[in-house]
Amino acid sequence: MNAAHSHRSEKEPFTIGVDMGGTKIGIALISCCGEIEDYLKVPTDAEQGKEVIINKLKEQLHRIIKRSETDLTNISGIGIAAPGPLNPETGVIHSAPNLPGWIEVPLGQMISKAFQLPVIVENDANAAAWGEKMYGAAQGINDMVCLTLGTGIGGGLILNGKIYSGNNSIAGEVGHIVVNKDGPRCHCGGYGCLEAYSSATGIKDRICHKIEEMQAADPDFVPGIDAAHIKLAETFQRARQGDSLVKDIIEDAITYLGIGIVTLVNLLNPEMIVLVGGIANEGDQLLNPVKELVFHRAMKSHLKGLKIVLGKLGEYAGVTGAAALFQQSR
Amino acid sequence: MNAAHSHRSEKEPFTIGVDMGGTKIGIALISCCGEIEDYLKVPTDAEQGKEVIINKLKEQLHRIIKRSETDLTNISGIGIAAPGPLNPETGVIHSAPNLPGWIEVPLGQMISKAFQLPVIVENDANAAAWGEKMYGAAQGINDMVCLTLGTGIGGGLILNGKIYSGNNSIAGEVGHIVVNKDGPRCHCGGYGCLEAYSSATGIKDRICHKIEEMQAADPDFVPGIDAAHIKLAETFQRARQGDSLVKDIIEDAITYLGIGIVTLVNLLNPEMIVLVGGIANEGDQLLNPVKELVFHRAMKSHLKGLKIVLGKLGEYAGVTGAAALFQQSR
Repeated sequence: MNAAHSHRSEKEPFTIGVDMGGTKIGIALISCCGEIEDYLKVPTDAEQGKEVIINKLKEQLHRIIKRSETDLTNISGIGIAAPGPLNPETGVIHSAPNLPGWIEVPLGQMISKAFQLPVIVENDANAAAWGEKMYGAAQGINDMVCLTLGTGIGGGLILNGKIYSGNNSIAGEVGHIVVNKDGPRCHCGGYGCLEAYSSATGIKDRICHKIEEMQAADPDFVPGIDAAHIKLAETFQRARQGDSLVKDIIEDAITYLGIGIVTLVNLLNPEMIVLVGGIANEGDQLLNPVKELVFHRAMKSHLKGLKIVLGKLGEYAGVTGAAALFQQSR
Repeated sequence: MNAAHSHRSEKEPFTIGVDMGGTKIGIALISCCGEIEDYLKVPTDAEQGKEVIINKLKEQLHRIIKRSETDLTNISGIGIAAPGPLNPETGVIHSAPNLPGWIEVPLGQMISKAFQLPVIVENDANAAAWGEKMYGAAQGINDMVCLTLGTGIGGGLILNGKIYSGNNSIAGEVGHIVVNKDGPRCHCGGYGCLEAYSSATGIKDRICHKIEEMQAADPDFVPGIDAAHIKLAETFQRARQGDSLVKDIIEDAITYLGIGIVTLVNLLNPEMIVLVGGIANEGDQLLNPVKELVFHRAMKSHLKGLKIVLGKLGEYAGVTGAAALFQQSR
C-alpha cells in the first residue's frame, strides 16, 4: 500500500468516480489501481431540476459508501465527470445542454462540503478519454483523441500525455467540426457540424425530417418506423438490411464521422483515435468502414503508426477516468 | 549581457535565423532580444537540386556573418525554419513537397559541421507561429493557431505555451482540414482539403479549371487573364471589381478559410488565430469577412476572448521564430 496513506488506515484507500450524464448517473467505488470494486447507476431524470438531481447524487454517494462497508476515512476523494462547459479549477458547471437549469452550479464545492472530502470536476468527454488512457484502449498513448459518440458527440484531447483544455477549458468539441458548410443548422448556432450527421440525435432528426418530406410528397406514405422513439441500434440494423428510409442516413453518419477523423488526424497527428459511447457499440460494423475511409483519405505521413480503435471501458470510462484524475490531482 | 556567454565574448551574441522556402531563402542576423540586425534573401531555385541549394545556403550564411563584422564566436548558433515533414530532434528533413529531391536530408548536421555551430531545425509553419508568439501579434498568448496562407496552407499550433508537434512531429496540417467531402482531389491524396480552395495554388488551379470548362463550352471564349501566371493580389483585386471569372472562386477561398477556422476554434478553443503569408497581405479585405463568418458560426462559448488577427512580422516571422527557438533550446 501507499506509504503516504498509512497514517489514515491500514486498508487501501478508495476513490469514488461519478459520471453525471443527461440520462443516467453512474457511481463507482474504485481502487487505487483503477479496479471497479462497486458500481451503481440511477436515471438522472433531468427534467426534475437541479436540486432533486443533486440530492439524488448525494443519496447514491451515501449508498455506495455504506454498502462498501468502509468509512469515509477510507475514501480519498471524489472525481466527477460532468457535462460542460465547466471550470475544472473551481468545480463550477457553467451550463449543461442536457441538464436544464444548470447554470453556474458549484457542484465540486457542494459535494465536497456534504461529504467533507476533496472533489475534482472534469468534463465528461475528457474524463472518458483519461479513463481509456489510464486503464483502457489507450494505455501508454500520449497523443490521442477520444470521440464520445452518443446523444451528442463529445471529444477529449490528450496531447503530450495531458488533457488539453484550451483557453476557456472547453477544447475538444469534436462534434462541432464543420463537415458540410451548407449543412443543417446545429443547436450550437453553427451549420453542418459533425454532430448533426453522426450523433444519435442527428441520425434521428434526419430520419424524422426525411419522413416529413416523404409524407409531404405523398400523404399516403407510411414510414413503418416510429422515428421519434427508434433505438439507435435498430437504425443501424435496418440500414444493413437495406431499408431505403435509413440506409443513406446511416451511410452519411459513417462517412462524415470518417471525414471528421481525417481532419483530426491531419491536424493533430495523433497516435490513436478511440471511439466510445452508444454508437461505438456497433463495433466493427462502425469501425471498419470508418478506418477504410480514414486510411484512404488522410495524409500518408500521418497514417504512420496511427491506430483507430474502440474504447475498452464501455460505460465505465467516465467514472474510471474521473477517479484517476482525482488520484493524480493529489 | 547574459553572464552565461561572458566567457566567449564581451559582445552580445547573435543568432542566425534561416527560412528555407520553396521560392526564396531568407537569412537574418538576430539579437538575443529578437531584433533583426541584418537580413538577406536569395531565390531558392528549387529545380537546381539539393547540393546547389545547400551550397548556396552555406555561401549566404558566410556572407551575412562576414558583413556583420563579427566572428563565429559571437554567433551562438543557427535556427533553420524548413519545409517538412522533418524531425526537429535530429534535424533531418524527411521530404519537402516544394524542394524536389530532398529526401532524408540531415540539414541540421550538415550546417552544424560546416560552421562548427549548434543548429536546430524546425518546421517552417511552427517557426512562424513561434516568431509571432515571441515578437509579433501573439505575444503573451499560450493557445493559438497560426495559419500560413501562401503557395500552400501550413499551420503552427501553440498549445499550453508550446509548439504542439504530434506523434510524428507533423501536427498542424491546417491546410488539410477537410472542408468539402465531395471536393477536388488534393495533392495530399485526400479530397476537399482547405488548401484546394484557399491557398494561392488552389485559387489558381480553380481559375484554370474554370477557364478550361468555359472554353470547352464555348471555343471562342477568351478569358482575358493569364491564369497560369496571374499574381494572387490581382485575383483578389479582380474579384472586388466584380470580375465574374474569379469572383466566386475568391468568395469560396474566403468562406472555406472561415469554415476551417470555425473547426479550429470549436476543436482547440484557442485564444488567438493569426493569419500570415502572402494571402494575409490582403489585410482587412481578407480579415473582416473571415472574422464575420467565424463570429457568426463558431460556438458562442468558444468566441469568448477569441482574437483573429493578421501577423505582425511579415516575411520575417520564420527567421525570427527559428532564431528564438534556437535561443530557447540552449
